Amino acid sequence: MPEAPAATPEQSAFLVSLLEQGLLIGTGEPGVYGRSAAFESIRQAFDAFVTREAAGDRSEQVRFPPVLPRRHLESSGYLKSFPHLAGSIFSFDGTEQQAAQQEDLASRHEDWSGYQSMTDLVLVPAACYPVYPAIAARGPVQPGGLTIDAGASLVFRHEPSGDPARLQMFHQREMVRIGEPEQVVAWRDTWRTRALELLERVGLEPDSEVATDPFFGRSGRMLAANQRAQELKFEVQIQIAGPAPTAVASFNYHQDHFARTFDIVLASGGVPHTACLGFGLERVTLGLLHRHGLEIGAWDATVRRHLWP
Amino acid sequence: MPEAPAATPEQSAFLVSLLEQGLLIGTGEPGVYGRSAAFESIRQAFDAFVTREAAGDRSEQVRFPPVLPRRHLESSGYLKSFPHLAGSIFSFDGTEQQAAQQEDLASRHEDWSGYQSMTDLVLVPAACYPVYPAIAARGPVQPGGLTIDAGASLVFRHEPSGDPARLQMFHQREMVRIGEPEQVVAWRDTWRTRALELLERVGLEPDSEVATDPFFGRSGRMLAANQRAQELKFEVQIQIAGPAPTAVASFNYHQDHFARTFDIVLASGGVPHTACLGFGLERVTLGLLHRHGLEIGAWDATVRRHLWP
Repeated sequence: MPEAPAATPEQSAFLVSLLEQGLLIGTGEPGVYGRSAAFESIRQAFDAFVTREAAGDRSEQVRFPPVLPRRHLESSGYLKSFPHLAGSIFSFDGTEQQAAQQEDLASRHEDWSGYQSMTDLVLVPAACYPVYPAIAARGPVQPGGLTIDAGASLVFRHEPSGDPARLQMFHQREMVRIGEPEQVVAWRDTWRTRALELLERVGLEPDSEVATDPFFGRSGRMLAANQRAQELKFEVQIQIAGPAPTAVASFNYHQDHFARTFDIVLASGGVPHTACLGFGLERVTLGLLHRHGLEIGAWDATVRRHLWP
Repeated sequence: MPEAPAATPEQSAFLVSLLEQGLLIGTGEPGVYGRSAAFESIRQAFDAFVTREAAGDRSEQVRFPPVLPRRHLESSGYLKSFPHLAGSIFSFDGTEQQAAQQEDLASRHEDWSGYQSMTDLVLVPAACYPVYPAIAARGPVQPGGLTIDAGASLVFRHEPSGDPARLQMFHQREMVRIGEPEQVVAWRDTWRTRALELLERVGLEPDSEVATDPFFGRSGRMLAANQRAQELKFEVQIQIAGPAPTAVASFNYHQDHFARTFDIVLASGGVPHTACLGFGLERVTLGLLHRHGLEIGAWDATVRRHLWP
């Protein structure tokens, strides 16, 4: 397995301070933490800040649970690009005797995986994935296209790490645009500017860059080169514990990939394009804590007014 | 596998009306639905209603993601009682060649489970499970004990069903009490009365009953009989699509089970008892929609004032 990048000394020290302050609660697994009321209040305040900013988009709000039909993952190409990050859900489907054998192994922390079989569900790998089949099922997309606000969606990535900004399950504050290519690109560009402004207003110093996804393996390098050449992905980065900056928002232009995969069509004929954007809410929260300090009460008044108006 | 009870004609018809009205969004898998803004506004309003009611409890608010270290599930006894409901998380840990073989099978919707191996994580089966190891890690529980508010926590149950009130992933509005036995039982009894009052105020007609968990297999019948004899579990039930009533809140007294499992101790010496309570937020939402109709705007003004004060 390609390991997640090891945590830097700065990241490890930041994690320790978050745990000591009780903002995060250790579980024994890297990248899986409980969160205090203070941590959650920041995360939810930034979520609401994005919602206020998005009010002009006339989007439709929908919410999906963090589980997805396995068929949709299989169709999407995710397992080609990111097999190392996907999580599938297994369960028990045996007899009473097998249940007893499974429990016997599990209670001694030995290997009980042989008693588990694959279910029809996987974990949602990116917050936009449940949106496309739902939109396809409604019939053709009308002129003007659609903007879907998928809210703060939980997604799973199997990349255990000691960097507190690299969680195995986290919230993406997600929006999706579906329509004619020029509509979709214009929306993506508007939101890229808007994201920079939003982050600046809460005292962060964001940069926007052309980026690539963490594609798997050698063949992934070609996918990444192609993605970069076509400028299909932008990220907004800020300084967290670093020393390198961390992406806190991602803007992805899929061209016709998801529309073709899930059979979304335009009422005017032809295949729409799609784009999505997501803020990593835990990363923004960590960025705010790192920049302004672990005591919210001591934060700059302007920053607090933007978050808690 | 013991199948989840088949949906009744009333439940199937209710599901169809929820899908037609757009309150739920089908995904192709039973028990996995997207939700509209209206559905979510009811769910969140009832969540906040419980929070206001709990304000006097001086509880500590914590939030956990829906994934749990596998070790904790293995230690808890869950796999003895409910092996059929647990979900474990598998992922890919192979070579580039194996990734290509997996993708080849998956893209044709054939069996790729052989390329997946068990991770160190499982899905949270009940919202109180992450709380106990976190409390144990803090050291002895002080006199007076602890009340933990775990908020609206997502939990997984592998029981695909056509009953819209039986979801594979749903929110439990969860609280946990840890302390001396009499403190814990008194808290449980207070909340049982409070839950009935809360549900009555929003126009539902709740009943409280001694109940049993859906233990697995023949040996489970003995566990259930014991649980019933000791009155360790109460449920509050309401009428949803029925015709039988549906549990919307559950009150569980664990005696010293979780404290012993996760080594929680009292500062005064000895082992604390624990109890938890959870409202099934989607079930309450469905109960409100079933009772008052699918148009929130037409609901009784008193009910709306309680939910949106």
